[in-house]
Amino acid sequence: MDLDLARELAVTNDSKIVLYVIDGLGGLPHPDTGRTELEAADTPHLDRLAGDGICGLTVPVGPGITPGSGPGHLSLFGYDPYRYQVGRGVLEALGIDFDLQPDDVAARGNFCTVDEAGRITDRRAGRISTDTCTELCDLLREIKLPGVELFVEPVREHRFLVVMRAPGLDGRLSETDPQRLDVEPLSVKPLAPEAEGAASLANKFIEEARRILADHHPANMLLLRGFSKHPSFPLFGDVFQMRAAAVAVYPMYRGLAKLVGMTVLPTGVTLEDELETLEKHWQEFDFFFLHYKRADAAGEDGDFDAKMSALEAADAVIPALRDMGPDVLMVAGDHSTPSTLAAHSWHPVPFALQSQWCRPDRTEEFNEVACTAGSLGVFPATDAMPLAMAHARRLTKFGA
Amino acid sequence: MDLDLARELAVTNDSKIVLYVIDGLGGLPHPDTGRTELEAADTPHLDRLAGDGICGLTVPVGPGITPGSGPGHLSLFGYDPYRYQVGRGVLEALGIDFDLQPDDVAARGNFCTVDEAGRITDRRAGRISTDTCTELCDLLREIKLPGVELFVEPVREHRFLVVMRAPGLDGRLSETDPQRLDVEPLSVKPLAPEAEGAASLANKFIEEARRILADHHPANMLLLRGFSKHPSFPLFGDVFQMRAAAVAVYPMYRGLAKLVGMTVLPTGVTLEDELETLEKHWQEFDFFFLHYKRADAAGEDGDFDAKMSALEAADAVIPALRDMGPDVLMVAGDHSTPSTLAAHSWHPVPFALQSQWCRPDRTEEFNEVACTAGSLGVFPATDAMPLAMAHARRLTKFGA
Repeated sequence: MDLDLARELAVTNDSKIVLYVIDGLGGLPHPDTGRTELEAADTPHLDRLAGDGICGLTVPVGPGITPGSGPGHLSLFGYDPYRYQVGRGVLEALGIDFDLQPDDVAARGNFCTVDEAGRITDRRAGRISTDTCTELCDLLREIKLPGVELFVEPVREHRFLVVMRAPGLDGRLSETDPQRLDVEPLSVKPLAPEAEGAASLANKFIEEARRILADHHPANMLLLRGFSKHPSFPLFGDVFQMRAAAVAVYPMYRGLAKLVGMTVLPTGVTLEDELETLEKHWQEFDFFFLHYKRADAAGEDGDFDAKMSALEAADAVIPALRDMGPDVLMVAGDHSTPSTLAAHSWHPVPFALQSQWCRPDRTEEFNEVACTAGSLGVFPATDAMPLAMAHARRLTKFGA
Repeated sequence: MDLDLARELAVTNDSKIVLYVIDGLGGLPHPDTGRTELEAADTPHLDRLAGDGICGLTVPVGPGITPGSGPGHLSLFGYDPYRYQVGRGVLEALGIDFDLQPDDVAARGNFCTVDEAGRITDRRAGRISTDTCTELCDLLREIKLPGVELFVEPVREHRFLVVMRAPGLDGRLSETDPQRLDVEPLSVKPLAPEAEGAASLANKFIEEARRILADHHPANMLLLRGFSKHPSFPLFGDVFQMRAAAVAVYPMYRGLAKLVGMTVLPTGVTLEDELETLEKHWQEFDFFFLHYKRADAAGEDGDFDAKMSALEAADAVIPALRDMGPDVLMVAGDHSTPSTLAAHSWHPVPFALQSQWCRPDRTEEFNEVACTAGSLGVFPATDAMPLAMAHARRLTKFGA
């Protein structure tokens, strides 16, 4: 549903909706057993939820498309992930809890290695340690740019964040990473006339950095990608006419929720802490986005058993969630993270929605195969919010 | 399928297609039995049809969207309900069989109550009786507008229709209902420069009406919504290259059929009368839209048993329909109307299509759960017409 249409049809009532995102939820069969992590795990409460509600599989972005965390979540929030794109620089800033301001231009930085002729020989500088990255960022912070406040923040290994802050700075800038070896880094070019000032500042920063880094082989140069500014997306609360809160431990997910205007609640780091936070604020909000990270982390590590046990932990809190009495409870994933791939994947993601107004289907288990037979079929993740709104009776009739 | 593409691919032959719309067809489980109206009803002929043909569930407008009768039918006729929207004023006119002309601007009127300061205290004037509404409409008919023919027609309770007829009148006008209490009704504003004349006429009408109604508390003022003109949609017969007829008892559905250029056949009021009408005109047309209202009416009344028996009555005419020998017979609904909700709903609607050229699926029953497993899956209602055309061999190949 188009957000404008959602805004037009949304009405308010006293219902509560919970979107429980199990990060990296979907998986693939174990080569020995033929069973996915979710099939192998003991998840009685998710199975009961599937039995009580309606099921299907979400396609986060499009068939065959492996989503990053940004589009994976935005689509579950109802935002078309093609239309509402978040720059890499901004995502990097969100991921380290950097307090991005409207005038900031952010870029994702990589330390890299160049030869004596300045040609790239390693785009990741041999994946230097995070400690080295931190030391180098300290050095880069000394760079002065006229009229600009500069931030250089380490992220992890060879990755860091660069933010230029100055009124009216335009972020439409080209990247310097040529994406191949044996050529020099590109210079930053303005992609709009208004961005000429920002381009010359960025190039000045790069020249200073080249001088400073020259003696720090293998990290003797840097590449900048994804110049971007904080996007001004329609606000979730305005569109869906709900007071919305986010309960998430990791900065990236808190940042994505903040990006669409959700109130980010302070919370402890365990799933139990998150549940407690949710319960404590139950009366204050209409919509809750609850994020659980461990399933994805285990999948990314390629650890089938760890993902299984993460899913069992995710299952264990379902009764507590249901006890709070949400009018609509959705269990979803932002994407699949099969342990066998040890990475995000394009595979559709199990989805269940439970509410008093569900027309029950025949699904009695919550896993990749069972959900295929659910009444929602394989559907775009952006449909989750309109479906939740309908089942919470928060959408008025279209047309007379 | 885009209507332009349909027009390009449509060919003629001597096949016959019947679209049998059981209004409000879909339902929800009864809280005691867990069975929907359609599951509980005894519908052997519909079940046989499902067994012989292919099944699925239609999404009338979009996931989670509850359609009005307008979009619910237009989508079954193959018209994208977002693109082909019908104003409330026009729908009100269709619903009382008002013979709307191309130059007419129609609006839906509500009698309302205002206090001494002119602020709205009841947007529906305490739902006055239809008789009172009729008397007040008689009074409003006395209003004279320069160069305009005025029609004021009672609809039901506090609702009525206003039509201004004058050459070149523009219908792009804002509504006067502020949609909340304790404020004055808004004045009509032109939404395009060409509509300034129409706006000033509408405001003149409102001022006269305010004077006339002043002493008729609680109906001492009126609100006007959905100013609109008869839309000029592509004609169904041109697009699909068929002579199309509508058999419907209620004005709204006859009006919707007329809107897309179908021939509306005069008919008696029972379903048997409708069947007789259809049979009588069998040779004259290629396509028949047959509308049956009772299932929706029972659903809207929240009467589970009445809806069950309406569905059984709908089932009983299937043999007679099949005996006429249509090349394609579709059974569909414009939306769901679950008795438990006593209202239209967003739930997908059971659908069956029977023809010699079906690739049979495993569906052997016609109800909400069984149709989920049908080979059509959950699909947009706008696909029904292209599917029917294909099975009637009325679509030529796309591309060489």
